[in-house]
Amino acid sequence: MNAVRVVLVSPRNPLNIGAAARAMSNFGFDQLRLVNAYDVAFREARSAVNAGAVLEGAREFATLAEAVADCALVVGTTAIGHRVLEHPLRRLELAGTQIRKKLQRAPVALLFGSEKFGLSNEEISHCHWLLRIPTREEHGSMNLGQAVALCLYEITRQPAAAKAKPEARRAATAEDVERITERLTELLEHSGYFHVAEDAPSRLKIRRLIRRMDLQAHDAEVWLGILRQIRWKLLS
Amino acid sequence: MNAVRVVLVSPRNPLNIGAAARAMSNFGFDQLRLVNAYDVAFREARSAVNAGAVLEGAREFATLAEAVADCALVVGTTAIGHRVLEHPLRRLELAGTQIRKKLQRAPVALLFGSEKFGLSNEEISHCHWLLRIPTREEHGSMNLGQAVALCLYEITRQPAAAKAKPEARRAATAEDVERITERLTELLEHSGYFHVAEDAPSRLKIRRLIRRMDLQAHDAEVWLGILRQIRWKLLS
Repeated sequence: MNAVRVVLVSPRNPLNIGAAARAMSNFGFDQLRLVNAYDVAFREARSAVNAGAVLEGAREFATLAEAVADCALVVGTTAIGHRVLEHPLRRLELAGTQIRKKLQRAPVALLFGSEKFGLSNEEISHCHWLLRIPTREEHGSMNLGQAVALCLYEITRQPAAAKAKPEARRAATAEDVERITERLTELLEHSGYFHVAEDAPSRLKIRRLIRRMDLQAHDAEVWLGILRQIRWKLLS
Repeated sequence: MNAVRVVLVSPRNPLNIGAAARAMSNFGFDQLRLVNAYDVAFREARSAVNAGAVLEGAREFATLAEAVADCALVVGTTAIGHRVLEHPLRRLELAGTQIRKKLQRAPVALLFGSEKFGLSNEEISHCHWLLRIPTREEHGSMNLGQAVALCLYEITRQPAAAKAKPEARRAATAEDVERITERLTELLEHSGYFHVAEDAPSRLKIRRLIRRMDLQAHDAEVWLGILRQIRWKLLS
């Protein structure tokens, strides 16, 4: 992940510089570069509480060319959806995959323009292609810190890891589920829930109701305790 | 997308409320709900420039139960990775898919806790399950506005749309590529690039070099113009 250079071009707001650095730290990136940063903003961001190691290590460059000099791929971010662009434009979902591939072999620069104007045409001309976060056309422009977070999330996204069950919950045994059914049925008998003495349809309804709870083993035990306690109170 | 209720519980910073609303607008969500919001923060966020329709329509609730009353699924967000939790915990990549499925049938609430403490155990007990943004263990806690943006991005993520090529660029014809090769070769002859008169290996090198450029039709024309101009200067 330290092969990704997050390059903020002409950032103006210290909060945004700080938010970008925080997102980088969240997702394990540490190469922050600033081009033509508003000095006061950079100083303020750096002196903020919990600015962290990413801001400490951030480097300033006078020109964009110097900031991306060691990168084999330079990707610009843009809010523009349908304007005719001189550059190929890729949605973030696809761009993430392509950046990940390139990263295995060489450093990649990810460019973010100023809060107000985005990247200029001159700045974009340094890019191999552009990345678009799939926002609405009517409101495309994103907050800088949020845009950085989204790009880094997509680059580190691991759908396979997400599919691994975080925990294996043990399902309740049929025996426990049936015990719960019996105890609840008994309580309902004592409470006058069944209108006729046998009322087989209602009893089956209760059995199905309990099955639909799809109980975990631990929860089945809790339910048995609950029903035991109510039974004790009701019948004592 | 208006079946998603973004619920901010005890938010304290007006900038974060505003950032959450902005991300919602970016991705086409409009149901913002606040529980126990710090009054001043909410008022400030609302009065901010460009607060937009989402903040205009935001609703305040006294309790979390009221804020999620109309939802069929309540998902809490947490930075906690490995602490033993009473709730099933799903990574955002998977959670997004599950939320999308549920949304086809019923409203879903997405809960975000206060900036400082996250969701309390009491608040979490209203959730069906928890969602974890896959941040680093060493620095898990995210900025509130960024966390909202990431969740909404994942819910609206469309890998299929990203795979559709944004534009079909026409490749240069072999004829144009060969014309470029010839013109460059001619220039190099005049410039003394070839050390021996025939130098077939170097000429083949040039031909392969031009093919590796993988030129677009438009760029081939630009190159032909460039070479024509240099030839004019060199031979005139």
